[in-house]
Amino acid sequence: MYSIQELQSIIDKAVKGTSYPAEPKELYEPIAYLMSLGGKRLRPALVLMATDLFGGDINDALAPALAVELFHNFTLMHDDIMDKAPLRRGKPTVHAKWGDSVAILSGDVMFVKAYKMMIQVKPQILADVLDVFNATAIGVCEGQQIDMNFENRGVVEVDEYLEMIRLKTAVLVGGALKIGALIGDASKQEADNLYQFGENLGIAFQLQDDILDVYGDPLKFGKQVGGDIISNKKTYLLIKALELAKGDDLIELKNWLAKPDFNSEEKVNAVRNIYNNIGIKDLSENLMQSYAQLALDNLDKINASQENKSTLMDFADMLIKREH
Amino acid sequence: MYSIQELQSIIDKAVKGTSYPAEPKELYEPIAYLMSLGGKRLRPALVLMATDLFGGDINDALAPALAVELFHNFTLMHDDIMDKAPLRRGKPTVHAKWGDSVAILSGDVMFVKAYKMMIQVKPQILADVLDVFNATAIGVCEGQQIDMNFENRGVVEVDEYLEMIRLKTAVLVGGALKIGALIGDASKQEADNLYQFGENLGIAFQLQDDILDVYGDPLKFGKQVGGDIISNKKTYLLIKALELAKGDDLIELKNWLAKPDFNSEEKVNAVRNIYNNIGIKDLSENLMQSYAQLALDNLDKINASQENKSTLMDFADMLIKREH
Repeated sequence: MYSIQELQSIIDKAVKGTSYPAEPKELYEPIAYLMSLGGKRLRPALVLMATDLFGGDINDALAPALAVELFHNFTLMHDDIMDKAPLRRGKPTVHAKWGDSVAILSGDVMFVKAYKMMIQVKPQILADVLDVFNATAIGVCEGQQIDMNFENRGVVEVDEYLEMIRLKTAVLVGGALKIGALIGDASKQEADNLYQFGENLGIAFQLQDDILDVYGDPLKFGKQVGGDIISNKKTYLLIKALELAKGDDLIELKNWLAKPDFNSEEKVNAVRNIYNNIGIKDLSENLMQSYAQLALDNLDKINASQENKSTLMDFADMLIKREH
Repeated sequence: MYSIQELQSIIDKAVKGTSYPAEPKELYEPIAYLMSLGGKRLRPALVLMATDLFGGDINDALAPALAVELFHNFTLMHDDIMDKAPLRRGKPTVHAKWGDSVAILSGDVMFVKAYKMMIQVKPQILADVLDVFNATAIGVCEGQQIDMNFENRGVVEVDEYLEMIRLKTAVLVGGALKIGALIGDASKQEADNLYQFGENLGIAFQLQDDILDVYGDPLKFGKQVGGDIISNKKTYLLIKALELAKGDDLIELKNWLAKPDFNSEEKVNAVRNIYNNIGIKDLSENLMQSYAQLALDNLDKINASQENKSTLMDFADMLIKREH
């Protein structure tokens, strides 16, 4: 079975080998630009990995894998407009470079291109693959909306947060794997089990992201450590801290959340200290581990060789032990 | 065969009978709102009409027809953001009512819903139907981009304008008909002929729209007569007038185009007078008629009963003789 690194590199090569029409350049240059900014290519690699797991030919899964990467980048292009984000992977976002209208329309075309790649599967599985893709796309949009709604809400419960990251992040991890499984001729039941593996792993992945944002090594993390704290982002860490903090810790935490002007480093250190006082890191890591364990339980149920399954286990392990 | 009015009413009933998930309401309320604003439901009616033309069951075409209406309204939702339009069918646009972010994301979900409806066809034609739908969607996006580019250009040629409206408007008319034809088990050749009928008719339709904008009866038109003149929109009428006007007419026309402040009624009347001096209305109507004739020639080639074809001829006739 291929290693995840091999699959990522196959995807990366295919992305680099993709060309777009020359005109209208306002539509196609932003697509080529965003796709060229890199990223880990994990989601499309998962499509290939799932096909490989069930003994399918990864060449049959390459177009749908690229569809997943196009779809993921389409959501980034539109999300960045909504979030007014100036940078993506350290480079100007599409809307910052070309304006909102270009980013809206270019994103729309990107979404159609994703469908065009996705339908390049055997006729017998086309309807099933599209059902998964459509459900995934709706989930991701709903997750993004719920995430934006959280910004305007005082209190968010842990369960609501977990449902939001399930939709915004995890259904695409699950969907990518399920599509790959269908291409690899897995049964519906096997494909569903692999979906559940992916969904649970996706939740663990996002929790790890939230933890790294606060506790990551600045030299390895790649983004500004403490970004979530600076923006009062309602992650699991903050939600749990607001639930558990008492006395002075709670007063201080609420003060930091309410301050319109502050020194970023000071705020990040202060809030991290409060998290440390109430053991937020351990709580978060335990929760992440419990989702990782659920994922492994799902994998256990799948009828594939132990050797093949261990590649997925290694992948899960890599995701939750990653430092960036 | 069903009349176009019967088909429009079937679509309207189906649109009104469609319900959307309750949450997140920011995603689904705007979809229900925009779909409830009405419109002629011509595009989805064409899907049914094409199925009917080839003796198919229009019930098989209802979901794809609604997909076409959802897709059309999705493009309106996003276009209205880009055009900063305050009103749509006399009511506040989605972005004016809920903000740009909601209009972007709600539109994205609408697009997925369109795909979900579109794939409700027999497995044997699914790939072909999706090929048409994807090509249509890409055409419409390219047309919108080219239309926006025209705003920032001094000179636009007639051929460029015709290519723009072909993409922005006509490919969807053709695409709707072709999808209906495939559902009615038409051969590829017949479906292509019907597509060409629709594309030519769509161009005629848009030219009639441009003519009505200048020469429509204010009591019947439904929109502000002269809106294109007020906004210096580069329609066929203006492009041709700039090509043909001479002497004082040309100077006056260019003056009106350059004026930042003006009385709207005065500008509309003055520009319309210049158009009258050089016979722009006749030229436009002749061009429109020539596309309508091309459409009828395409229809001629189609192997269907004269009675059925005459319903489509009546429809074409209605489109180019309409007053709103």
